[in-house]
Amino acid sequence: MKGPPNVEELSPATCWSLMADEPVGRVVFIDGGQPVALPVNHVVEDGQVFFQSTIGSKLDKALREAGTVVGFEVDSYDEVTRSGWSVLLKGTIHPVTGTVTAAHLDRFEVPPWADLGADARWVRIQADEITGRRVTG
Amino acid sequence: MKGPPNVEELSPATCWSLMADEPVGRVVFIDGGQPVALPVNHVVEDGQVFFQSTIGSKLDKALREAGTVVGFEVDSYDEVTRSGWSVLLKGTIHPVTGTVTAAHLDRFEVPPWADLGADARWVRIQADEITGRRVTG
Repeated sequence: MKGPPNVEELSPATCWSLMADEPVGRVVFIDGGQPVALPVNHVVEDGQVFFQSTIGSKLDKALREAGTVVGFEVDSYDEVTRSGWSVLLKGTIHPVTGTVTAAHLDRFEVPPWADLGADARWVRIQADEITGRRVTG
Repeated sequence: MKGPPNVEELSPATCWSLMADEPVGRVVFIDGGQPVALPVNHVVEDGQVFFQSTIGSKLDKALREAGTVVGFEVDSYDEVTRSGWSVLLKGTIHPVTGTVTAAHLDRFEVPPWADLGADARWVRIQADEITGRRVTG
């Protein structure tokens, strides 16, 4: 479907690049039938999104099932120019297994957003689809 | 559940105030079983969130059923201080009926985010719950 003239669909490569450059994204998931979104700091690598969740937290409980369908959203908006972009990834959640991978991710020094204590663990989103668009004011 | 020491739960009044001051929020909904989030520019009034969707758009189709359960998320993060806050509203979607209300909302001159053409219409989220937290680095 063709959109309005001020909206440009973004290529998957551009979507990945924008998502990697933005420090904060939102994990979108279903919690007891309710659609919710929580911000996290994330790392993008190899077509996957990595972030930390605390064992026992609401996020962690909702994502406990490996293979749970989730979304991941990143955006940016400039109030002055009324321009912006947004990227939406659809995928499934998986635990990060292996201390080598976790140690590798730790080196990014991605700071915790919230809800993180000593029991933080890395999880990853395996992407099925990524779409995005840029809007000019 | 008590969180880590750098996380402060926010009062509903503070949540509403933060949500009103931030121009962009994300509508969180279930689209064919998939949890997704899309950014919109919004107006907060009387315990409700108002935004525009285009008739026939993906967002509009997903929200066509009055009473559909949705989320609405707003956040802010400072990379330097590693501080931020996030607010999550849970509620139901409803059409804005009445040209007086629509004309009133139009006066806010909330710019379209995307996917908006001549056929934009206002919708509102009736809040059931609003929660938020502030994180200090």
